[in-house]
Order: sequence, then structure tokens, then C-alpha cells
Amino acid sequence: MISDEIANIDTPAVLLDLDVASRNITRFQSYANQIGMAVRPHIKTHKLPQIAALQLAAGAIGITCQKTSEAEAMVAADPRLTDVLITYNIVGTKKLAHLQDLARKVRLTVVADSSAVVAGLSAAFATQPAPLRVLVECNTGADRCGVATPEAAATLARQIADAPGLQFEGLMTYPPVNGATQVQAFMTKAKALIEANGLAVKVVSSGGTPSMMQAGQAPVASEYRPGTYVYNDRSLVARGVCDWRDCALTVLATVVSVPSANRAIIDAGSKALTSDLLGLSGYGHVLGRPDIVIDQLSEEHGRLISPQPVALAVGDKLRIVPNHACVVTNMFDAVHVLKDGKCAGLWPIVARGKLR
Amino acid sequence: MISDEIANIDTPAVLLDLDVASRNITRFQSYANQIGMAVRPHIKTHKLPQIAALQLAAGAIGITCQKTSEAEAMVAADPRLTDVLITYNIVGTKKLAHLQDLARKVRLTVVADSSAVVAGLSAAFATQPAPLRVLVECNTGADRCGVATPEAAATLARQIADAPGLQFEGLMTYPPVNGATQVQAFMTKAKALIEANGLAVKVVSSGGTPSMMQAGQAPVASEYRPGTYVYNDRSLVARGVCDWRDCALTVLATVVSVPSANRAIIDAGSKALTSDLLGLSGYGHVLGRPDIVIDQLSEEHGRLISPQPVALAVGDKLRIVPNHACVVTNMFDAVHVLKDGKCAGLWPIVARGKLR
Repeated sequence: MISDEIANIDTPAVLLDLDVASRNITRFQSYANQIGMAVRPHIKTHKLPQIAALQLAAGAIGITCQKTSEAEAMVAADPRLTDVLITYNIVGTKKLAHLQDLARKVRLTVVADSSAVVAGLSAAFATQPAPLRVLVECNTGADRCGVATPEAAATLARQIADAPGLQFEGLMTYPPVNGATQVQAFMTKAKALIEANGLAVKVVSSGGTPSMMQAGQAPVASEYRPGTYVYNDRSLVARGVCDWRDCALTVLATVVSVPSANRAIIDAGSKALTSDLLGLSGYGHVLGRPDIVIDQLSEEHGRLISPQPVALAVGDKLRIVPNHACVVTNMFDAVHVLKDGKCAGLWPIVARGKLR
Repeated sequence: MISDEIANIDTPAVLLDLDVASRNITRFQSYANQIGMAVRPHIKTHKLPQIAALQLAAGAIGITCQKTSEAEAMVAADPRLTDVLITYNIVGTKKLAHLQDLARKVRLTVVADSSAVVAGLSAAFATQPAPLRVLVECNTGADRCGVATPEAAATLARQIADAPGLQFEGLMTYPPVNGATQVQAFMTKAKALIEANGLAVKVVSSGGTPSMMQAGQAPVASEYRPGTYVYNDRSLVARGVCDWRDCALTVLATVVSVPSANRAIIDAGSKALTSDLLGLSGYGHVLGRPDIVIDQLSEEHGRLISPQPVALAVGDKLRIVPNHACVVTNMFDAVHVLKDGKCAGLWPIVARGKLR
């Protein structure tokens, strides 16, 4: 199952099957083309300019980042990344200075969900040569950030339009899973209110991989921001969104101990797989071994248990589909790229660990 | 509560109160001195040569690392770190080559819990100028790695003693919480069996911060490897091991959204705090705000809810004690050091992200 070449990679390592990732990119882009929706992939999943370039080549209109520092790393690595949406409230003078700098390099859009955030953005951009595009972030049920009502969205849109240095561009939401109905209702109403107020709503941005194939059920959206779709992971297999063969990212681990007949220990713990459960039990899926549960992680150890003999030996290599691909990407400095099942390079994960 | 100087640090950031850490180091060293047990702190918690130096200055006999790459980073940063125990089964030719290199630089000890691991170590060290010290890892109830019985420990001790390039040095365990009785029983029996077999057991190494103040209840141990004790965290407060004022590591975060009266969002998510729960509910403790629960993390957002008005504003700074300090250390490239409540430097976390 694991070639000698792959088995020779020092572990724990993260492997990226480029053929699978390319197929995943094409599949969603084709669907989006069919329903006439633009794609603006979220790079948090891969943090790699090489994958962003593939997404753009397939038809994406730009990229989404969550942090200014992530966007900076991506743009510095590939000057073809010229259109960036940062789906985050940027707060604080230091971050705003970075945002000013980034706005000189790319076509930049950010979001805001309060007048406090708008005031900060305006203060930073009033003196800049070009206005900053701002979307109003809306809470369509995920209960994270976002204004609570279409009326509040319209009020904030007006504040943005009136704020020196800013340009109101449209609406954005990170919807709940299966939230197309809520998105359609909230955004249709907010758009109508804002337009009645004399402002154009050029962009309505929605996202989320779990429900991406229902994006057509919220046609009010003009663009979609899938992230995890490029790699997939165990959480998406569990939701029935994809199959194991659609999972492009795996963690390669070595068995370091087989202390009892039904237990083995691997060298991938929470520093490699992370503790993200996403509602699942267990910390990953061992490819080819559905009997095994990774029931416990410490930083450097993963514990594998099986109701049948675990039948592993010290030195055996395993490939694991993590619960959540995005967070695993953040744990590694570089990813081993596979093409046609062969090692095709080691790519530094340039936007890893960008917290600011 | 948060000085202007600290509030000026860009977020999310990790802060290390050096006064608290120094006090924590001294407290356990004093206890260990009283009971006549050596201290060999696990550096996984801080990954900082500067803190290891403080631990040695207080009386520690050496350091513990979990990975060869961690040990390499620490030793390269401070030549005073001359005595290293790696409490991990080292498997694979690449890792063994690094181990050979490290063994030339420091007094090195590793562990093994199977003849497969012993065979690999022996093959790598048979040709080296000096033998490698090896402890037998024993399972005293944590059910991670380790031989299952004192008899198996004695058998493996003999294999190590007979293996070219290796020197049997003693026993090691990572015990379950409150496991002093099990440690004492297992190790006493294993030691007697091994000594009856004509081998000296020079080291019996135990560890774990939660039960460290009961180390004296397992006097068979010659050394103790506490890790988290230097920083403490929410999990240790929850166990009654320490108080909030003993927590040396905090995450500084900024409020970026207050979307409803009882909810606020900070810019520290799972990339900063990690998803480690350690049996707790919620992802950290907001200092000074016991009413707040951090009930949900995504990568870049932490959600704070309170039964009372959350009474926070965009831009407010908060200090959070994480559930688990060690894993947070691994997420940041550098730590802001505080002395007497003032910023005293930015230390690169040199052993961060060392997976190999």
C-alpha cells in the first residue's frame, strides 16, 4: 500500500496527493461554473501559493485569507495572487499598518461587523491613495461574528459608504452547515434594504465546504469561499461529502511501539494530527485499517486500538486522514508532494503559523 | 489589569511571566531536594534553552526531550545542556543517524520498550566510539508505551546489556495520574529482578506534573521529570495542583467582535489556544472573568459567552490561561517575556515544531 519511496520519508510527515487535490479543485469549479457563481477559495487549508495558483488556473477569481499576515506570505510568494479578500475584522494600529501596505500591492477587500471596526479601517485608509473595499459580515446562524439582522447590515453598509477611505462593496457570511436557506433569506433582505438606500451590493460572499454542493440553493451569493474542499478530511467523509479516495492530505506515521495485542503507538500525536475532533470520536482514520481507532493523543504519541489483533510491528508506516485538514497544515513547516504516487517535491508551507 | 506596554503587543501572542516560572521551578526543586530525588525537567513545555538554564541553575541534573530534533535544537542553542534523556523509542535509520550525532555532543540516554527498538539502537551504536545508555520504558498504568510487566522489563534489560553498542542504565515510566503506588510496586519488583540478574539499575525515572508533589510516595524513583510545572495551566488549576497566580504562560488576545450582549469573539482560536480539552469543558480561562466560557474555537476565532452581559468592546485585550500550556508553546515562533510585569524580551521558541 505504501511505496518504498514514501516509506523512506522521515516521520511524522504530511503528504499532499496533488492529483487528488487537482481533481477536487476542478470538481467544485465545474459546479460553480454551472450555477454561475464565482469561486474565491480560502487558502487556510493549504497555505501554499502553488495550490492557490492551481485554483486560479482552474477559474477562481481570487483568494480568501483569514489574516493579513497569511495574505502577506501568500502574495510575497506569488505575484500572480493579485486579488485578496480577508474575511476578518482587522483591529489595532499595527495590523492596520500592514493592511495599508498590502492594499498597495493587491486588489484588497476586508470585512467589518461593527462601527468600531469601520472606524479603525476608516482612520487607517482616509489618508491612503485609494479606498479600501469593505463587506459587511453577516450572522446567518453560525453565531460567530457578523451583524445580527439585515437591518443592522444596511445601517453598517451606510456607515461604510460614508466613511472616508472606505468603499462599501457588499456582504459576506460564514454560514452554518446546511445554511443555504438562511443565507438566501438574510442576504436577499439585506441586499434589498441596502439597494433601496441607494448603494450597490457588488459582492455577496458565502462559503463553507460541508454545504458547498448546495451553494446553488442560495443564488443571492455572487461568490463562494470553499477551503477544505481542496484536501477533504475525515470530518467531510463522516458528513458524506466525499470518500477516502478524495482525501488529498494524509499524515505519514511510524509505529514505535506495540505494547499489547490490541494496541500500537505511532509517532504522530497532537503536534501532528491536532486535537480537533469536529464532533467525531477518535483523532483520524488509518487508511486501509477501518478497525483501528486512534483513541488518544499526547503531543508525540498517537494511541491506536483495535477490537481485533492490531497486527502491526515497530517500524511499520501508516497513512492517516486527519479529522481536520486545515489545522494539520498549520503544524508542519513543509509538505511532501506526491504526483502519480511518486514524491515530486517538498513545498514549504509559507503561510503556516501566521497568527497576526 | 493589563498594562499599556502589554496591551501594545500585537495579538495573538504568548506571554511568559518569568517571575512566576522561576517560583514554580524553585518550588518543585525544593521538594525534590527534601525527598532526595533528582529533577530532570521535560523541556516540551517551554522549548526554550533560557528556561532550561534556569532549571539547571536551580539544581536539575539534566533535561528530558521527547524527540531527537527537540534535543538538537536545545543543545545547539546552549552548550551548557550536556545531559539529555530522550523518553522516546527512536525508530528508523534517519533518526538513528541524528541520534549518533547527538551522542557525540552530550551525555545521552534513550528508552526502549521492545527488542525491535533495542535491535535498531544496537545496530546504530555498535560501531560508535561509546555505548548508548538505554532505560527500559515500563507501563505502570498509563497504557501508552512500555513493557507490561516487571518480568518483561527484566528480559529487555538483559537484551540491552547484551546488545553491542548499548549500556543498560535503568528504568523509566510515564505514570498515570496519582500513580505513585503503581510506580513503586512495578519498579521495585523490576529492579529486584534485574539486580538478581547481575545488572545495576542506576536510574529509575518517573514523571508527570499532576502528581509531582506525591513523588515521595514512590521512593524507588531516582529522578523525576516534571514538564508543565514550570508554566502550569488551566488543567492543573482544575486538578487543584496550583492557582491562577501560579500560571506563567498566558495568551494575549484582542476582542474583534461583540455581536450580541452575551457573546464576544477574540483573535485567538485553535491556532493559538489549540483544541486540547484535557477533560475540561471550554478552551481556556479568561483572567479576571470567571463568568466567561470560551465555548468554541475555529482556527482564528475564539468565542466567549457569558450568562451575564459580556461587557467587552472591540479592541479590548484579554489574557487567557490555556487548558494545556505545552501545546500552546508549540504554536508560536516566539514568546514575550515579562519580568516584574514589564516586557523583558522576545525569545524565539527554538524547539517549536520539531516533529522528527
